[in-house]
Amino acid sequence: MDLVAGVDFGGTSAKIGLVDRAGGVHARDRVAIDARAGHEAILGPVIDGLRRLAAARPRPDRVVGVGVGTPGFIDRDSGTIAGGCENIPSLLGRSPGGILGAALGVPAWADNDATCAAAAELAYGAGRGLQSFIVVTVGTGIGGGLVLGGKVWRGARGFAGEIGHISLDPGGPWCPCGGRGCLEQYASGPAIFRAWQDMAGRRGVSTPARSPVDVAELARAADPLALAAFAGAGRALAQALGGVINLLNIEACIIGGGVAGAGEILLGPLRRSLPDHAFALAAAGVPVVAAGLGNEAGLLGAAALAWERLGS
Amino acid sequence: MDLVAGVDFGGTSAKIGLVDRAGGVHARDRVAIDARAGHEAILGPVIDGLRRLAAARPRPDRVVGVGVGTPGFIDRDSGTIAGGCENIPSLLGRSPGGILGAALGVPAWADNDATCAAAAELAYGAGRGLQSFIVVTVGTGIGGGLVLGGKVWRGARGFAGEIGHISLDPGGPWCPCGGRGCLEQYASGPAIFRAWQDMAGRRGVSTPARSPVDVAELARAADPLALAAFAGAGRALAQALGGVINLLNIEACIIGGGVAGAGEILLGPLRRSLPDHAFALAAAGVPVVAAGLGNEAGLLGAAALAWERLGS
Repeated sequence: MDLVAGVDFGGTSAKIGLVDRAGGVHARDRVAIDARAGHEAILGPVIDGLRRLAAARPRPDRVVGVGVGTPGFIDRDSGTIAGGCENIPSLLGRSPGGILGAALGVPAWADNDATCAAAAELAYGAGRGLQSFIVVTVGTGIGGGLVLGGKVWRGARGFAGEIGHISLDPGGPWCPCGGRGCLEQYASGPAIFRAWQDMAGRRGVSTPARSPVDVAELARAADPLALAAFAGAGRALAQALGGVINLLNIEACIIGGGVAGAGEILLGPLRRSLPDHAFALAAAGVPVVAAGLGNEAGLLGAAALAWERLGS
Repeated sequence: MDLVAGVDFGGTSAKIGLVDRAGGVHARDRVAIDARAGHEAILGPVIDGLRRLAAARPRPDRVVGVGVGTPGFIDRDSGTIAGGCENIPSLLGRSPGGILGAALGVPAWADNDATCAAAAELAYGAGRGLQSFIVVTVGTGIGGGLVLGGKVWRGARGFAGEIGHISLDPGGPWCPCGGRGCLEQYASGPAIFRAWQDMAGRRGVSTPARSPVDVAELARAADPLALAAFAGAGRALAQALGGVINLLNIEACIIGGGVAGAGEILLGPLRRSLPDHAFALAAAGVPVVAAGLGNEAGLLGAAALAWERLGS
């Protein structure tokens, strides 16, 4: 069976796996990453891991391509990381796809991880059969990937999808990107935690939460401040997505990433606020749904990228 | 020579003309519209006018299609006006393309006027040779049209492009669309006039301006309040377009419509603010330029739509 190797880079590890065209994962592993190491020290163990997985497959299985998902801006022509990879600085200006492909002797491609998530939802998830949708990955940061006309939309240079850095308020909080009032400042995990902290501090609530995950747990236990923090994030997502719907008239909004694991605690307020920000005609019948692929999203996204580029 | 008939509906008249594939206008006229009349009373004179223009052409010229640009939301499948045509209410639920095409015995299509403007800039104007750009039409309202992947992007139902109703501030002024802080509330002609009025009123300036056109004239004469009013509009456009650039990684922003006639008075502040709202990598080399077609834009847009749909 033909398989592709998928590599999903995170800040502390890379998830690797071998995936068939239908999205079946036939082997997987996790490779620790020293994010401060040089690029050979980071990519070498990934190459070794993929070789190990491939060698362990029974004949006639073979690896026919590699897909790499990574944070940052990936130049669509050269495959090099052009920016936005502050977490793994030695990869800046490198082409992880090119390096892995050369080592394994197969074609390889890299793309932004949220763009990969869009490819995965299109091929295997909540976007199957749709022509146009956005995937928003809500985690420590907020990323986005677009499918337009049945295909992943990368933009002129491969940098499309950055919904996390749409400004929702020109007087809003500063963002590390240099902008003000970016969606990420209202709806990322750290932003939700800050909102909860602010409210708890003002009301003199003793603080049992130390992280976004704790706030999500409080919200699930119906803590009103935690629910309010998630509701604020939902409203900010609604403002951004309402603009996207008015601009693009897409068919669906798919919300993934760790913070989206909060489910209706986040999606409920988002759905209720969407009519404040989108034309009724454009928003009619546009579902706001959770991503379909959970923990597999990154690995499947990298694999979906390779299958998409390999063609049918 | 094969020609298409173009029809550009405004609130008080329709511009009509016969246009060749290269964008040459071979005949033109203007038909008065009683916007409150029934749809037959509106479309009948347009049909008569087109027949007159066609009959006056020498052989072997012939009209092979009709393109119609109109305000509002045009359903891409049926061609009917689904909403947003409050200025010409009797057209709601009608298919102006269908009616004109049936009367003239040729294929016909209708599209939102800003979408037509994008088609025109792609075929004949500042977007020639580009794969992806946005056209923003700044006038009494703010419309938008997108070209993505070398083609006009209409969205799932034909409603795409509404950049005028992206919210720039959830606490901003209410918009007739039901939203708050829409771009249109900051950068349309009436918004620029209101901003000037507010500043002039607060400073006790006696008021020589009675319209957006007067404010533009004051700005050209270096009146500081008029320049400030246009600068505010430029900054709002920069916030919206920065978001579009981050989301779509397009190649160019093309600014048209009557208010864009102010030229650098509007475009200068827009360009200077853009880096505050867009990633440097995504905005690098993205020109912000005036639309190339001036007064012809609407008619050429309607014609470009017909030529696009007729294919090559």
